Amino acid sequence: MILRVKVPASSANLGSGFDTLGMALSLYNFYDLLSLLPSGSYEIEVIGEGEHELENPIGNLLIKSYERAAEEWGIELPGLKLRCLNAIPLRRGLGSSSSAVVGGVLLANAMRDDPLDKDELLTLMVSIEGHPDNVVPSCLGGMVVSSWDGHELRYVKLPSPPRDIVVVVAVPNVEVSTSEARQALPEQVSLNDAIFNVSRVALLAASWATGQWDYLPWAMEDRLHQQFRARLFPGGEEILDRVRSVSGCLGVAISGSGPSVMAFARENVQEVAEAACRTFMEKGVRSRFFVLDIDENGAVVEYTEPSLDKEEIGHVKSGR
Amino acid sequence: MILRVKVPASSANLGSGFDTLGMALSLYNFYDLLSLLPSGSYEIEVIGEGEHELENPIGNLLIKSYERAAEEWGIELPGLKLRCLNAIPLRRGLGSSSSAVVGGVLLANAMRDDPLDKDELLTLMVSIEGHPDNVVPSCLGGMVVSSWDGHELRYVKLPSPPRDIVVVVAVPNVEVSTSEARQALPEQVSLNDAIFNVSRVALLAASWATGQWDYLPWAMEDRLHQQFRARLFPGGEEILDRVRSVSGCLGVAISGSGPSVMAFARENVQEVAEAACRTFMEKGVRSRFFVLDIDENGAVVEYTEPSLDKEEIGHVKSGR
Repeated sequence: MILRVKVPASSANLGSGFDTLGMALSLYNFYDLLSLLPSGSYEIEVIGEGEHELENPIGNLLIKSYERAAEEWGIELPGLKLRCLNAIPLRRGLGSSSSAVVGGVLLANAMRDDPLDKDELLTLMVSIEGHPDNVVPSCLGGMVVSSWDGHELRYVKLPSPPRDIVVVVAVPNVEVSTSEARQALPEQVSLNDAIFNVSRVALLAASWATGQWDYLPWAMEDRLHQQFRARLFPGGEEILDRVRSVSGCLGVAISGSGPSVMAFARENVQEVAEAACRTFMEKGVRSRFFVLDIDENGAVVEYTEPSLDKEEIGHVKSGR
Repeated sequence: MILRVKVPASSANLGSGFDTLGMALSLYNFYDLLSLLPSGSYEIEVIGEGEHELENPIGNLLIKSYERAAEEWGIELPGLKLRCLNAIPLRRGLGSSSSAVVGGVLLANAMRDDPLDKDELLTLMVSIEGHPDNVVPSCLGGMVVSSWDGHELRYVKLPSPPRDIVVVVAVPNVEVSTSEARQALPEQVSLNDAIFNVSRVALLAASWATGQWDYLPWAMEDRLHQQFRARLFPGGEEILDRVRSVSGCLGVAISGSGPSVMAFARENVQEVAEAACRTFMEKGVRSRFFVLDIDENGAVVEYTEPSLDKEEIGHVKSGR
């Protein structure tokens, strides 16, 4: 038996909920601990997203988070031989770095004699990542409102939506770095735009909590960040309007800081995906799409058989 | 039997929910229709808040809203002989003008052969008032998130809180006009402050919807408007911190654009009220306070006996 940490992707912001709202998605990275090594030694094999690139332990966020947890707790932890089976695309706004943070801290926690609860680990995870909106849903699952002041975290996990609401995610074959996406933002905004987002995000949280799904397209509208970030990738300035206009689309937003785009849909799922991918295609950019559920469990630590069969690897690579 | 329209007071903003959140309070104005007069003629007697001042039909918002509804519907309505029994203080941030708008439109609606539902009247009420955050709760009751773009209204009424949570309202004997309170605001704010409120208001709506009452003090914090409005009345710059520090206070905010202050409390209700009133007293300002519930019914149109007995008038004047 080996230790496996399974961590979901996440989509943050949802338009109006800038730096606040996020949800876990049914697309996963699996971090398998094959054996323990002497402290400070790491061997990483990566299958799927980040092959080669993520195999160097230096600068690997999974390892960095593992070591940061050990430091935080004042304990020495062993080195690790890991196999990572990654389905979460990198630098596409789908929370791959948060999944590494959550995975690293959970691996460290599994080494403790007295493992902590997820709730007790969250503040550490958020302080490593710097923002709560991907880390909290990635760890806990679900649609989560979180608020972080640099020291303290408050969050509320909202109820699950009906099962027929799916999340369509279109992932173009271009990258946007989170720091570039932050630099694109102005320092000042108009009070009216601030009030606009306050009003829409409050409606979004309230609609989600009370099941008024037809309010989502209105409630996800944003004036604080998407218009700046849309300029950073091909098709960004057209895609939200194009996808929103598809009948059955229950709201659309840039996922995280982009360039992926996420939309809720209850019907015409294929048309929603097509509107997104066609917009990228018209700009000469290849893209792929996923039709996902909201993951309600969050990260899972389990003991499993060491070898993955081919079917499971195919399952991971296709994102379901 | 006479027609009586009973309309609750309301408290808008709740700190982070600027122009968005509002709740109805168990403090009422009663608008009694004593008899019909020729179209365009009005006689108004006012008992309680606004005695004398509100008795001139010219510029009276109740009458203006009544006539605006007639105009909107393209019908001629009779004049009115009214007795208003008013418990909602004027120009104190407790929604007295919204109660007049709601009352005027409901009086007009009662004259229709085919009265409309409250839901069908809301857009008209909001367009008369210009903002949804007092009108919608005053009409429908409860804690409401509302969003208005000048044409369309979306709102979500949140679940009722436990009965032991009360609303303490301290009302100083000074006035702040809504337009003065708006002029005190800057045109630009920092993106960080905007994100701060987005995050807090989303947490507020989510906490309220899911019953996490201990999050309210954090979730009601605001950086967009209260620091500017606090300068407009004596004690404004100290009072929020003073009240917040009372054990049992579940969040405090300037009510509407002030100068009243509202706080939620579950215990030490008297101490919460005292902290507020003492702050005003130390600045040489007299104040009174109310301990109220959230009104969950909103405005009520009913037929009742014409004469109020002394007990009922006393009841109204004391605000319960």
